Amino acid sequence: MQIGDLPTPALVLDKARMLNNINRMTAKADGLGVALRPHLKTAKSAAVAALATDERRYGITVSTLKEAEYFADHGFLDITYAVGIVPGKLNQAAALLARGVDLKIITDCPSVAAAVAAHGAPFALLAEIDCGDHRAGVQADGDELPAIGAAMQGAAAAKLSGVLTHAGHSYGVNSVAEIEAIAKAERAAAVLAADRLRAAGHAVTTVSAGSTPTALHMKDATGLTELRAGVYVFFDLDQQSRGVCAEDDIAVSVLASVIGHNKTAGKILLDSGGLALSKDIGANAFRPEVGYGEVCDPETAEPMGGLYVSSVSQEHGHVKVADPAAYDRLPVGSKVRILPNHACMTAAAYDCYHVLNGAAVAETWDRVNGW
Amino acid sequence: MQIGDLPTPALVLDKARMLNNINRMTAKADGLGVALRPHLKTAKSAAVAALATDERRYGITVSTLKEAEYFADHGFLDITYAVGIVPGKLNQAAALLARGVDLKIITDCPSVAAAVAAHGAPFALLAEIDCGDHRAGVQADGDELPAIGAAMQGAAAAKLSGVLTHAGHSYGVNSVAEIEAIAKAERAAAVLAADRLRAAGHAVTTVSAGSTPTALHMKDATGLTELRAGVYVFFDLDQQSRGVCAEDDIAVSVLASVIGHNKTAGKILLDSGGLALSKDIGANAFRPEVGYGEVCDPETAEPMGGLYVSSVSQEHGHVKVADPAAYDRLPVGSKVRILPNHACMTAAAYDCYHVLNGAAVAETWDRVNGW
Repeated sequence: MQIGDLPTPALVLDKARMLNNINRMTAKADGLGVALRPHLKTAKSAAVAALATDERRYGITVSTLKEAEYFADHGFLDITYAVGIVPGKLNQAAALLARGVDLKIITDCPSVAAAVAAHGAPFALLAEIDCGDHRAGVQADGDELPAIGAAMQGAAAAKLSGVLTHAGHSYGVNSVAEIEAIAKAERAAAVLAADRLRAAGHAVTTVSAGSTPTALHMKDATGLTELRAGVYVFFDLDQQSRGVCAEDDIAVSVLASVIGHNKTAGKILLDSGGLALSKDIGANAFRPEVGYGEVCDPETAEPMGGLYVSSVSQEHGHVKVADPAAYDRLPVGSKVRILPNHACMTAAAYDCYHVLNGAAVAETWDRVNGW
Repeated sequence: MQIGDLPTPALVLDKARMLNNINRMTAKADGLGVALRPHLKTAKSAAVAALATDERRYGITVSTLKEAEYFADHGFLDITYAVGIVPGKLNQAAALLARGVDLKIITDCPSVAAAVAAHGAPFALLAEIDCGDHRAGVQADGDELPAIGAAMQGAAAAKLSGVLTHAGHSYGVNSVAEIEAIAKAERAAAVLAADRLRAAGHAVTTVSAGSTPTALHMKDATGLTELRAGVYVFFDLDQQSRGVCAEDDIAVSVLASVIGHNKTAGKILLDSGGLALSKDIGANAFRPEVGYGEVCDPETAEPMGGLYVSSVSQEHGHVKVADPAAYDRLPVGSKVRILPNHACMTAAAYDCYHVLNGAAVAETWDRVNGW
């Protein structure tokens, strides 16, 4: 089967590009002398996870307990669930421990740490540190970190085994110098927090950091034990717009059909709208022209030049036409590929990847979605 | 099971509110003397479709052929697929005809009409009309409409059986006067186009119009045969912000857990982010404060007063805190309900509805997603 034979919309994956991206990040982690723990929230696919871990099924990161269960089903037994746990999810997490998964859970809340300690299961808890992103996490030098440590001191079976931080603010800049500065602060926060916990008597074995931008631009990982990064396996316009990858590194795209020409309104209509592409427009911060995605040749994935998904409704993508030659280039019924703003968000609308070898559809890989 | 027992994030549906919304639209169509053909792109659920059609499984509208197949599996045999068809999808559509579905397909393109005519299957084709939304559709008074008619003249089995228009621009205004004006133009465009096709010898039996706002504010449906509307079954902040419904009409919401307090950054963190809520912020055009959703009491769904999901990442929702009393009101581990911007986009992340009778979870209803 060739890509042109697929029904639309469809999620397609260029395997050669993905392997190149995986090799780049693996080499970077090797060079820094730290482990790589790929974040599978992007791919949500056991096939991708196996390639991202060199077929050895070493440690991975997930964003939901459903992902943890799916990857455990596929033989991944060293998993960090990197979203703050709540007491109501501890039984589900304990069930993963009971089936042999080395599951790490995280919190930034002393009362949750107390619930983890009191539960009775042998949880490995990581304290989440805010290194400047101001999403989740306690301050590395603040009072909440020792409070989490204190809450875990009396645990019969659970242990506080480390710290984890995420420099999500590295997505908000687009110069190497800024990313490098964030990477430095990220490492410093994680190492400081780890040192404080060690000084309080905790056996810290995990010091985890790394977003895709900071991992790729990190110069010194001293004191870290691992890097977590996810979107690098696919990359997207978001990352390209921040200078983290080239456009031809983007491995995942949406195959769409042209379903109409509204020449009065100056637009080409596609069958890929807000559901097929997602409404994420993160790349627009630095590349405002890309809208909801960049229109490319269906076979080569080369950008067609100045054609973007300018607006979306649920099942319609609108491509603004400046040069009427575009109507002849893209007749109704023809196909295009759309590079997404944010691979994680776009891929989540699909239950599988159509894996390309050139223009041939070589395989189909499943995904786990939902909660 | 009570709502508080559900794992989070979860999609919950207040059945009483939904039935009230359904009754309102049904009464409106009855009053106008036209049929109602509910658009199931919102609910994507056979259980909802049955209630929206008074258990008689009369005509419905869908946005994908996968939806058409799902609803046909559930006994719905009169279906309009209201997104422009392409030649590459005609075999899939013909298979629905072959299994007894009275399927209507649409196009705004003469070359597609020619492909429909040449295919050989007894398709019922509707010409899509642009009544001012400038998404898809030909002009009611333009040259493309007769060209579609001409392309269908020689069809052996297929027929051009009517016209369809969608006043999506009614979502862009927020006064009854503006919506009424759009509803008037919508009807006028559909009726003009139908008259022109009849004059050219086509047996027009379908004259289809109606978005949720225009259907609810239409004063005269003369010449229309049916109203299509979808989001009214659930409503959302988008519709509420345009004055189309009240906040306590919104029937669908997301149950979320509080997973952290980042007091340094002044925010409460939820386990419901861009995937669980979608990145649609349509309501912000008229209610900029709502962000990605409004935070409500988990049991009563009453707004908690000034708490909104101010930003999202993939699995995190950030609630900006102005009054620190919110931390005490919403301890880590507690639950909230989030009213969504756009019910269609939010619901699409879930494979089922947890159907509430008050605070009790009475049933679980499936959904069809993807393509």
